[in-house]
Amino acid sequence: MPIDVDALVLNEPGSLTLETRRCLEPGPDDVIVAPRAVGICGSDLHLYREGRIGDSVVRAPLVLGHEAAGLVAAVGSAVDDLRVGERVIVEPGLACGRCRLCTLGRYNLCSNVSFLGIPPTDGLMAGLVRVPRRWIHRLPDSLTDAEGAMIEPFAVGLQAVEEAGVGPGQTVAILGAGPIGLMILQAARVRGAAAIISIDLAEPALAMARRLGATEAINPRERDAAAVVRDIASADGADVVIEAVGAAPTIRQTLDLVRRGGIITLVGIASEQTVPLNVNQIVRRGIQVRSTFRYAHQHPTAISLVAQRRVDLLTPITHRFPFREAVDGFRFVDEHKSEVVKGVIEFAPA
Amino acid sequence: MPIDVDALVLNEPGSLTLETRRCLEPGPDDVIVAPRAVGICGSDLHLYREGRIGDSVVRAPLVLGHEAAGLVAAVGSAVDDLRVGERVIVEPGLACGRCRLCTLGRYNLCSNVSFLGIPPTDGLMAGLVRVPRRWIHRLPDSLTDAEGAMIEPFAVGLQAVEEAGVGPGQTVAILGAGPIGLMILQAARVRGAAAIISIDLAEPALAMARRLGATEAINPRERDAAAVVRDIASADGADVVIEAVGAAPTIRQTLDLVRRGGIITLVGIASEQTVPLNVNQIVRRGIQVRSTFRYAHQHPTAISLVAQRRVDLLTPITHRFPFREAVDGFRFVDEHKSEVVKGVIEFAPA
Amino acid sequence: MPIDVDALVLNEPGSLTLETRRCLEPGPDDVIVAPRAVGICGSDLHLYREGRIGDSVVRAPLVLGHEAAGLVAAVGSAVDDLRVGERVIVEPGLACGRCRLCTLGRYNLCSNVSFLGIPPTDGLMAGLVRVPRRWIHRLPDSLTDAEGAMIEPFAVGLQAVEEAGVGPGQTVAILGAGPIGLMILQAARVRGAAAIISIDLAEPALAMARRLGATEAINPRERDAAAVVRDIASADGADVVIEAVGAAPTIRQTLDLVRRGGIITLVGIASEQTVPLNVNQIVRRGIQVRSTFRYAHQHPTAISLVAQRRVDLLTPITHRFPFREAVDGFRFVDEHKSEVVKGVIEFAPA
Amino acid sequence: MPIDVDALVLNEPGSLTLETRRCLEPGPDDVIVAPRAVGICGSDLHLYREGRIGDSVVRAPLVLGHEAAGLVAAVGSAVDDLRVGERVIVEPGLACGRCRLCTLGRYNLCSNVSFLGIPPTDGLMAGLVRVPRRWIHRLPDSLTDAEGAMIEPFAVGLQAVEEAGVGPGQTVAILGAGPIGLMILQAARVRGAAAIISIDLAEPALAMARRLGATEAINPRERDAAAVVRDIASADGADVVIEAVGAAPTIRQTLDLVRRGGIITLVGIASEQTVPLNVNQIVRRGIQVRSTFRYAHQHPTAISLVAQRRVDLLTPITHRFPFREAVDGFRFVDEHKSEVVKGVIEFAPA
Repeated sequence: MPIDVDALVLNEPGSLTLETRRCLEPGPDDVIVAPRAVGICGSDLHLYREGRIGDSVVRAPLVLGHEAAGLVAAVGSAVDDLRVGERVIVEPGLACGRCRLCTLGRYNLCSNVSFLGIPPTDGLMAGLVRVPRRWIHRLPDSLTDAEGAMIEPFAVGLQAVEEAGVGPGQTVAILGAGPIGLMILQAARVRGAAAIISIDLAEPALAMARRLGATEAINPRERDAAAVVRDIASADGADVVIEAVGAAPTIRQTLDLVRRGGIITLVGIASEQTVPLNVNQIVRRGIQVRSTFRYAHQHPTAISLVAQRRVDLLTPITHRFPFREAVDGFRFVDEHKSEVVKGVIEFAPA
Repeated sequence: MPIDVDALVLNEPGSLTLETRRCLEPGPDDVIVAPRAVGICGSDLHLYREGRIGDSVVRAPLVLGHEAAGLVAAVGSAVDDLRVGERVIVEPGLACGRCRLCTLGRYNLCSNVSFLGIPPTDGLMAGLVRVPRRWIHRLPDSLTDAEGAMIEPFAVGLQAVEEAGVGPGQTVAILGAGPIGLMILQAARVRGAAAIISIDLAEPALAMARRLGATEAINPRERDAAAVVRDIASADGADVVIEAVGAAPTIRQTLDLVRRGGIITLVGIASEQTVPLNVNQIVRRGIQVRSTFRYAHQHPTAISLVAQRRVDLLTPITHRFPFREAVDGFRFVDEHKSEVVKGVIEFAPA
Repeated sequence: MPIDVDALVLNEPGSLTLETRRCLEPGPDDVIVAPRAVGICGSDLHLYREGRIGDSVVRAPLVLGHEAAGLVAAVGSAVDDLRVGERVIVEPGLACGRCRLCTLGRYNLCSNVSFLGIPPTDGLMAGLVRVPRRWIHRLPDSLTDAEGAMIEPFAVGLQAVEEAGVGPGQTVAILGAGPIGLMILQAARVRGAAAIISIDLAEPALAMARRLGATEAINPRERDAAAVVRDIASADGADVVIEAVGAAPTIRQTLDLVRRGGIITLVGIASEQTVPLNVNQIVRRGIQVRSTFRYAHQHPTAISLVAQRRVDLLTPITHRFPFREAVDGFRFVDEHKSEVVKGVIEFAPA
Repeated sequence: MPIDVDALVLNEPGSLTLETRRCLEPGPDDVIVAPRAVGICGSDLHLYREGRIGDSVVRAPLVLGHEAAGLVAAVGSAVDDLRVGERVIVEPGLACGRCRLCTLGRYNLCSNVSFLGIPPTDGLMAGLVRVPRRWIHRLPDSLTDAEGAMIEPFAVGLQAVEEAGVGPGQTVAILGAGPIGLMILQAARVRGAAAIISIDLAEPALAMARRLGATEAINPRERDAAAVVRDIASADGADVVIEAVGAAPTIRQTLDLVRRGGIITLVGIASEQTVPLNVNQIVRRGIQVRSTFRYAHQHPTAISLVAQRRVDLLTPITHRFPFREAVDGFRFVDEHKSEVVKGVIEFAPA
């Protein structure tokens, strides 16, 4: 080391290639990870198609990928609690650890964060990657690599239901049954939600929501979501409404679905910057609008819940691609959006 | 009893008269109150000018008034803990006590509430009024009648800072220095806020905010509010931002003033139903948008804080009118909005 | 009506008889319930053996029973949402609804409560009983009568884990695997606890805990509970420790099992009034000692969780007795404590 | 540097001397502070008299002192935001920053902490001391050095009332009016407590509590504290009771003073390890027993509250001693316990 490895590089919108990149030597507190499975996230697809996600713009060639399980390939001199060959996952948000929000434990809101795979920080779809020890979690043998790659999106789901305060007996409506919506659905079940209503336009997504335990999975083109929610929850609406689409109409719809005194949690990043909201409803009905950005302290919980088989992270994976065909894999997923629930890139054994 | 009394009646927008109304006999759990001082609230002025406030529309002649201190004139047969002649204040939101939100203690969100002075329920600007014992609070001798009439708006302020979680050392920005904004300001001081920045366009309001302890009182036509907040709070913004204007521009502005991970609390009812909000900022910066509608369980606290002289509810009262001149008083307050901070109607001794 | 019915009456410690009692006519807001199944609770056995439980002393003949499912036999004139013949359960703590704790929603702490079956208020082991509508919950068809009778102890379990703040990924140690301990165990699972360690001296209780999902069920005579907890949780102890025995040694032991910054929740009523506690550990390790007394707002949640089969309230019922043999049933349960997990009295169809 | 300085060293119980100690060069992230004022804490006196405090035993000569304000004398190579000559205070608990509780923001419970002035870590009563930049806070010009030295005990007070959830309108009883009790008293006022009852046996302490705003200051030898609390608060007791003595009788007494559903917070470290508590009262009355150990994130808040003159940290300082007479100063304070409220060691200008 340093050593040259293959990496999946986004050069400009729509242009992905496998290229050679150099993996640097580990610093004292670093770990070199050889990825085995890396998930394709909605934000990867945003970057691929549009060269940006929210305010993060691809200005230089970027290695994609932030949902990874792999093997320890090397450790820095100060790392004494991980050995080469151990199975691990990577938590990709490298927070600074020193700012006020970090010291308060809210490191997902660190403004100095480097997030692997989000510009300008290279990601994890490469033969070897260097990551600080702090952001590595051990993967139990009972979890497959693909499950390991799904821990990151499940952590988003756990954070969302924690921020929303989901508890036993509550009715939860989830707008969006894509990969994040499905993770929120399972996380809501873990916290004891009594009824979970998934809302999406894509039938494969709705079918998956039903398989994973949704009480109802509604296509709003066919049924009035608000009416179904009122029927199942109460005449006043759901206790909690979680938005995992990121579009103006669904963000507005949250206010129609939530009960007086209920909680809305926004998870999706809207393509529109600005969404017209009925703020008087927020005031007069005593609603709270919370939000979830990434996660903090959720990975160990996520791993333990999978290990106990309280949740199913494998079923949502509908497509797998070998790393050497990653470019075609991205193109396929991009062109078959409503058919692919979740795609994962798999690496050949060393 | 029943007995005929004078009452200030709104017949249609702009048309107020003193008319004779009948005060009914008390039921077993009722109290008959003879008001001594009743505040003129911004929502009274909305009703007076426009015949409506939010969704509440004046469809029949309405007695105004919901901020009242007075004397006990009679008690029902089951009321054994109040005597005729005792000084009291009225909590005007008569919640049902049986719905789920009432049994949870969140009675301000009761959907069955009758709110005195808001259509279709007659209010407190009358010679005698009938109120259930549950909503009567004893007024200590150390408080004047006018202070008693201010307990209701101060309860709104206490609720707002409680919902916002204001605590020692925090920086709080308050949009609006009208009567409610000034109550929020004082309530924020009570909870130990380190710095309070009041923002308003009216100079008398700003002068009053300075007198009542604002760290800074800013006219955004003269100074950049966001820059001042960042200077006093942190480069990232205020810990808490409270909106007490109820206008689209100030509601939008809350997002410019609040720090990452901070709390916005909406108190004002917007004249526009729909306000375009930058929801991506809410998500990416981990902001919570809460709201305050009226109050629950705040009146005893409000009374004790005034009795201890921790807050000053008299200074904001800039104008007083005798009840027999109430019609002219309303007209004056309506026509001198930026000059009148708070007006109170006073009743002649019996 | 009024009508004479059979009732199980405790006249003095150890002396139970089936006697005739009069069921009064319903007041306007009352419901007359014909019980179908009533659970035998640990506190019933305390009353039976000792004539008292805590400060509540049997000073006059008392009808026992507070865990009941049954049929609506009649309704008062103001009850318009329940019909004769509907299946219901009774929430037995008739709180006053007017004191400060009631209005705050914490009605389990009401000091004016009449608790059915606890002196001096007659309970539910009778042919017909009169209960205010507010304390009646409808029982879905998918639940059996015996399951309905178990809702009350399950509500205790839900309250305990809510007070303890149990959440996904946490490790929970539960001292006691009697009926209440088993309800807490299941409630902790509902909230997503990662590992649950049950501790008891009785092998049938431990076997039941294993069947109901305990990660480990430990007999401290055989294994060191603290060592097992540290092995499963962390070297520092469990996140949450819940005491459901009510004995000085187990109350003291909570401090050995909990981690720094963790939560202890006391549920059991100790036979000793006073227990020596290492308070310095509480301070130096930042521990919170909370408590659960009965429940508030848990019955609807409990019913919905059973209806969804998220919990199993039938398996703990090891013994059933017909009402006409209730006296022998009590004696049997009292004499075979370690063998009987939970006994239920069943009423013959009308 | 390294440079030899005078330090106040405890060699064995009762034996203090001024000795020469070497101050090491700063590491890159360190600051060298020249103390100007250092408070004498109750735990310093424990160490002085008994050679131990709780589990921390003096096994080697120890420099005392953990409440210090001073000047920056030198900074490490990586410290770019502090200059020589700036006025600062030291937060003395050097937490590890890596353990789970540290990453959650609860660094006061870090089990790897080195606490300056508590064995085996040398403290701040020395000519120069080396402290990591992270634990240094800038002192505004408006605060004197002695006030700076009082920030640390005031941070304990702020933590205690935050843990107790003190809020506007509440009644708070504080057992102990020594320096920590007086800090809790002032912190409770900052959060809006309606009535604060201080309880102590020493008249100078009670007089000081009255000066600093206690509603009542009670000597239990003269008046029944529980009766006074019930008279001021409610027949049921105080909302919050804070124990700042650390003795078995006062710890037991908390349960007599607190209302149903109220909060007890333990701050004092008991000389007895084990205190008999009426746990049934905790359960039946729904009481929470919380605790405060040191503080986390309170120093900036404490500084800002003093800068705004919301609290008075000077009045409790009844005695000052020059550093060269520190040995006599300790002896005096130790021998005049009930007369000295708070003593401070002052350093001559360089």
